[in-house]
Amino acid sequence: MTFAAGSENRVGVVDGADGAELVRDVTPLLPAGAGVRQVIERWAELGPVLAEHAGALPGVPLGEVELRAPLAPPRDVFCVGKNYRAHVAEFGRSGYDRPDRSEALPEHPVVFTKATTAVTGPHADVEAHRGVTAELDYEAELGVIIGRGGRGITREAAWDHVWGYTVVDDVTARDLQRRHSQWVIGKSLDTHCPLGPYAVSADEIPDVAALLVESRVNGEPRQSAPVKDLIFDIPELVATLSAGMTLLPGDVIATGTPAGVGIGFDPPRFLAPGDVVEVSVTGLGRQRNRIV
Amino acid sequence: MTFAAGSENRVGVVDGADGAELVRDVTPLLPAGAGVRQVIERWAELGPVLAEHAGALPGVPLGEVELRAPLAPPRDVFCVGKNYRAHVAEFGRSGYDRPDRSEALPEHPVVFTKATTAVTGPHADVEAHRGVTAELDYEAELGVIIGRGGRGITREAAWDHVWGYTVVDDVTARDLQRRHSQWVIGKSLDTHCPLGPYAVSADEIPDVAALLVESRVNGEPRQSAPVKDLIFDIPELVATLSAGMTLLPGDVIATGTPAGVGIGFDPPRFLAPGDVVEVSVTGLGRQRNRIV
Repeated sequence: MTFAAGSENRVGVVDGADGAELVRDVTPLLPAGAGVRQVIERWAELGPVLAEHAGALPGVPLGEVELRAPLAPPRDVFCVGKNYRAHVAEFGRSGYDRPDRSEALPEHPVVFTKATTAVTGPHADVEAHRGVTAELDYEAELGVIIGRGGRGITREAAWDHVWGYTVVDDVTARDLQRRHSQWVIGKSLDTHCPLGPYAVSADEIPDVAALLVESRVNGEPRQSAPVKDLIFDIPELVATLSAGMTLLPGDVIATGTPAGVGIGFDPPRFLAPGDVVEVSVTGLGRQRNRIV
Repeated sequence: MTFAAGSENRVGVVDGADGAELVRDVTPLLPAGAGVRQVIERWAELGPVLAEHAGALPGVPLGEVELRAPLAPPRDVFCVGKNYRAHVAEFGRSGYDRPDRSEALPEHPVVFTKATTAVTGPHADVEAHRGVTAELDYEAELGVIIGRGGRGITREAAWDHVWGYTVVDDVTARDLQRRHSQWVIGKSLDTHCPLGPYAVSADEIPDVAALLVESRVNGEPRQSAPVKDLIFDIPELVATLSAGMTLLPGDVIATGTPAGVGIGFDPPRFLAPGDVVEVSVTGLGRQRNRIV
């Protein structure tokens, strides 16, 4: 994890469970200036250092630290659209996937990006951007974090390139998403990519397909689906993206959102200032962001 | 400009014209480690230093240096689709702008991104990626380089945020562009974003609207249109992008391509290994890339 110490970022490891978690500041174990992305880049060397020495460092209660986005991705965040069946149907019906209203499943992954400047912390305020968008929506997603980079990665080799996972809220300005046809503007308003709370290494997750991706708005359950419902699974996404494009350590791939987003309702239920959005993936923690 | 000195990159200033150009290595005038992006970030301070002292440094003939991409953008390159009327028509007719074949002009800018790993030099080989794409195409474009970053930039203030210009070939894998519906994969194969040869500060360009954006394939003219033909002009693009997203110093916005791309022909004329693509903008220099 990454947490704030004044204006500085520190790297922490979370130890313990269920309300008794301690954050151990492991920055002294790392090369000068290294953040979580650099730890991931040098995981073969630094992972064992953390495993051996982090437990001896002093801990502070998790509730006392301010979490930042767990890592700064090396470039825009890759995202997959229309990757859960029921969401494809609700998106098609909504009319936002212009120009047609097709509920047909995509035959190939629909990939777009969120700009780096959209990334924010797991408990940060999410700006409503009134005057820019009137149709703010949430999208709970599992984020895959690339470890070893590469190109031409096969389905079979894909897991060797997955360092781990995080939680992503792919906040979306629906009016801009539709208006500009290609999605980067509607997906990239400042603060519209809460990441975290943690970057969780894959060895901590015995069965990623079993994880539940969920969201609540003001405490009301909205989305809940297991990762195994993905139309294009993680190996397929890694293989598709890397076929002709080199993936980098720290690249984040947001794998798509389940049904239950705001435009899935009739009439749509958009977010407004004061709303609180919670996005979680079992085993990876929970975000809680207030719309301001 | 950026040029190679062994495995290192150096910053150069080009002096002279028309075959007698000299490259002056201005790296010694810059803070340690600074590249062209850092020069742009600190232009108010470093621009005058270059203006005053570059001319006294030794020069080597331009033809003797190996040019790299003039700057490393801070994140994925923003690109505008369907921004010249005649290209909108040819793209619509081609059937590649699925699912419809509309030749209607866009009502709002169509913005997508090219991944950082696609960026390459102005004379570098462009990979054909056989096995990944069978439909390789070129797109000559004017690239706008952001100087002062910001959000909520008005049309009126936009020019204050434009540092200058470069040449972009928005190389495109048409089959992937169509297959994935959103365009980032089809636009981001490795080496598919030749930049440069130069980053040209805006003060060198008296009237950007008058510049001609052109391409040739194996010497045959393919595209030629003035920047004034843009449907959404530079101030409109800066205002639209920055409405809710903070632009960064060094951000590159490829402004769109004129008619004459490969899919504008019937049958389409795709690129093949051995082809040589030249892309130029008057006053900004010329790229020359071989397909391999």
